[in-house]
Amino acid sequence: MEPEVRVTVWNEGRHERQDPHIAAIYPGGLHAAIADGLREHGLASVRTATLDDPQQGLSASVLAETDVLTWWGHLAHDEVSDDVVGRVYQRVLDGMGLIVLHSAHYSRIFRRLMGTTCELKWREADEHERLWVVEPGHPIAAGLGETLVIEREEMYGERFDIPAPETLVFVSWFPGGEVFRSGCCYTRGRGKIFYFRPGHETYPTYFHAGVRRVIANAVRWAAPSGGPRPQFGNVQPLEALA
Amino acid sequence: MEPEVRVTVWNEGRHERQDPHIAAIYPGGLHAAIADGLREHGLASVRTATLDDPQQGLSASVLAETDVLTWWGHLAHDEVSDDVVGRVYQRVLDGMGLIVLHSAHYSRIFRRLMGTTCELKWREADEHERLWVVEPGHPIAAGLGETLVIEREEMYGERFDIPAPETLVFVSWFPGGEVFRSGCCYTRGRGKIFYFRPGHETYPTYFHAGVRRVIANAVRWAAPSGGPRPQFGNVQPLEALA
Amino acid sequence: MEPEVRVTVWNEGRHERQDPHIAAIYPGGLHAAIADGLREHGLASVRTATLDDPQQGLSASVLAETDVLTWWGHLAHDEVSDDVVGRVYQRVLDGMGLIVLHSAHYSRIFRRLMGTTCELKWREADEHERLWVVEPGHPIAAGLGETLVIEREEMYGERFDIPAPETLVFVSWFPGGEVFRSGCCYTRGRGKIFYFRPGHETYPTYFHAGVRRVIANAVRWAAPSGGPRPQFGNVQPLEALA
Amino acid sequence: MEPEVRVTVWNEGRHERQDPHIAAIYPGGLHAAIADGLREHGLASVRTATLDDPQQGLSASVLAETDVLTWWGHLAHDEVSDDVVGRVYQRVLDGMGLIVLHSAHYSRIFRRLMGTTCELKWREADEHERLWVVEPGHPIAAGLGETLVIEREEMYGERFDIPAPETLVFVSWFPGGEVFRSGCCYTRGRGKIFYFRPGHETYPTYFHAGVRRVIANAVRWAAPSGGPRPQFGNVQPLEALA
Repeated sequence: MEPEVRVTVWNEGRHERQDPHIAAIYPGGLHAAIADGLREHGLASVRTATLDDPQQGLSASVLAETDVLTWWGHLAHDEVSDDVVGRVYQRVLDGMGLIVLHSAHYSRIFRRLMGTTCELKWREADEHERLWVVEPGHPIAAGLGETLVIEREEMYGERFDIPAPETLVFVSWFPGGEVFRSGCCYTRGRGKIFYFRPGHETYPTYFHAGVRRVIANAVRWAAPSGGPRPQFGNVQPLEALA
Repeated sequence: MEPEVRVTVWNEGRHERQDPHIAAIYPGGLHAAIADGLREHGLASVRTATLDDPQQGLSASVLAETDVLTWWGHLAHDEVSDDVVGRVYQRVLDGMGLIVLHSAHYSRIFRRLMGTTCELKWREADEHERLWVVEPGHPIAAGLGETLVIEREEMYGERFDIPAPETLVFVSWFPGGEVFRSGCCYTRGRGKIFYFRPGHETYPTYFHAGVRRVIANAVRWAAPSGGPRPQFGNVQPLEALA
Repeated sequence: MEPEVRVTVWNEGRHERQDPHIAAIYPGGLHAAIADGLREHGLASVRTATLDDPQQGLSASVLAETDVLTWWGHLAHDEVSDDVVGRVYQRVLDGMGLIVLHSAHYSRIFRRLMGTTCELKWREADEHERLWVVEPGHPIAAGLGETLVIEREEMYGERFDIPAPETLVFVSWFPGGEVFRSGCCYTRGRGKIFYFRPGHETYPTYFHAGVRRVIANAVRWAAPSGGPRPQFGNVQPLEALA
Repeated sequence: MEPEVRVTVWNEGRHERQDPHIAAIYPGGLHAAIADGLREHGLASVRTATLDDPQQGLSASVLAETDVLTWWGHLAHDEVSDDVVGRVYQRVLDGMGLIVLHSAHYSRIFRRLMGTTCELKWREADEHERLWVVEPGHPIAAGLGETLVIEREEMYGERFDIPAPETLVFVSWFPGGEVFRSGCCYTRGRGKIFYFRPGHETYPTYFHAGVRRVIANAVRWAAPSGGPRPQFGNVQPLEALA
């Protein structure tokens, strides 16, 4: 039996409360839609958390019980506390998976794990997006067709200031002439990280069947593998020295 | 429930018949020991095949029913027919996993998939081998300690003439002063490939608990993901051209 | 002083003789335009060779005097002899750079070095192409702007069946909705390989200032580095064995 | 003519002043030996800077005139100011090369650029080190043999908690049974980074001919390439939107 993956869907949760148009699209918040998508794909252990929850929703005990964390943020990256960023960082290095969604490219946690600015070009113009699978053998592409179209989305364009992904799964095309590396895999410590581009708050992207499938695939891919926990520091020789 | 992975363990199978010393170590052939190791780790659908079977054990129908193929060869790489190499090659590109063991670094199929000579340094001197996990977050390292020691093995040393692995999971240390990239992941087409160094025919390596675990992990990692099968050739535009 | 890089520009050279329209665009053949572009960028030692030259233009002595080979082919991949493919292959593994241009994605030498089919989607529809620099720190991007536009080109679209490039320098956008990994770096043996997408024979692409700069940059990047030539085979221990 | 690469050799510079034994090995400080090694290899524009210089030796103007910075630190990583770390970080993202030496694996700047802890195993036991070239085609291996032996060094062992290097050039062997990824290439923004393991302060490593050659090669490899400086933020479409 597949081991249960315990997922925490974290959402900043401000747009939905400040803007009735967005609240109408995501009545339960973006987190509810993301969590529903995961449940739809058979992930049974899914909880949600938001910035305005106690301890910003990510206490040590919540993180200790989280195998994979998905992260959506936009307006309030700087309000995420040092403590929360530090805790999430340590958990990723220790093996927790992290799925970084859309505008969370600019979150403190993603920038810290990448070591770069994670800046990009952007435009809000109701363009459609075509995501192309460039690595069809990767588990995150399971069950997809060769291309995935989202009717309306914000545009993100290259140069995306990230380290070259270990695996590049998707590349996006936009009508305005831009391309974007929109599905990027990384390892940091024992943790796996996947950045996935789509998901602007003004569009119903997290109800899109293909997007939901990708995020569910990514969660399963990023689940901890159970490899060794390295010991660091001063060590004795394993072989007799001359 | 975990989908069943159908494994075929292929073995050249000549050493065991030509050399009583080797037959004593591997009474059922290397393939039997490798297959037993997989079953021990819960892989229920494992069959074996050898070079001297009809169609060299790898008919189109066998391959069609194989999700992951493990390959051991040494003396008779050149006897593997063009047909078999071609069929395995096509199946890998179409998504079948391939686990390349020890001296199979020099098999026709591995060299074809790598595009390089796959040459290396070697020595038979009853040395022990220490494999270090350098990527502890990778699924192939699941359940291992930081290092894995094999009491006696053949030495393989760098330079190993392969393309840089997409993921380097293990690096080996040998007493004679050499190192070796001994666990190497690749993607070719929709197929995943893992090269794993240990397994000289004169040692009981395929009874080693850690080695068995690695091979079982690798089989699960290399199982087909079910991503899209790309269409190639002339295509119509997806967008209206001006 | 920069060491002189000895370049051989190889061209199939058939289109130009069979089609007056193409001959009008490339009166000296595609090779002449490519070679002129390299000279324009200060590469002084540039010779050309074509399929219909003696020994298909690539005798052992020509290759021995070549630091970087650029390759254009389309109609007659299968006419390139086993000898020539074998000689070029050995020279690449021994350190010669190889720049693979446009339809040479399907050349025997590129497919052999990649280990995959190198297939792709294509369309001839007078589309323009936008190449985006996704790795602005790479030497092949020297002197370029962020994007490079070619007024009319053949379209190539993903999935491009190659191993993931070691470095992805360019991604192309096409009006019909496709993207393409159009600048891809590889190492095979001691040799460096760069695949560069543009260059359909019916367009004056090899007179394009940006395209010329990229190819010149790639030639300099791919020049042999002078690293060690590995010894393979049976070796004595470097350390005293117990 | 090769463009002049302006190098700044930065050294913490404390060991040499606190410990007469180390001062005897490096009378001018580690920086003097490193700088001499670069000059020996034809790099004419080399200056040195240390932690106890004004502005910790790395004012904005020094950095503005630096193409490649080499960094050695050990005792006083935490004394490097936020300003200096921030300035070096920005310069690397803007294209300055960074060569990170030995114990600087644990410097603030390297950890920030990597996004990981950069921890490792270590031991001071007068062991010798064998560095193996695993990527002989890389420019940093120019002029070397297949292996490079340092008579006495500190041991560093895996797991080294870094992101997988974009290119792994060297792997080290130690008598005590450890291996280490000792030559690691990265890109961050437009900047190239090379981590090179050897160089413990109690040994004359920076007088070693091979070590000097590697560092000089790395400086040339890491020099800025002159690629495009990306524009980030809100952009207008390049193509007419429907």
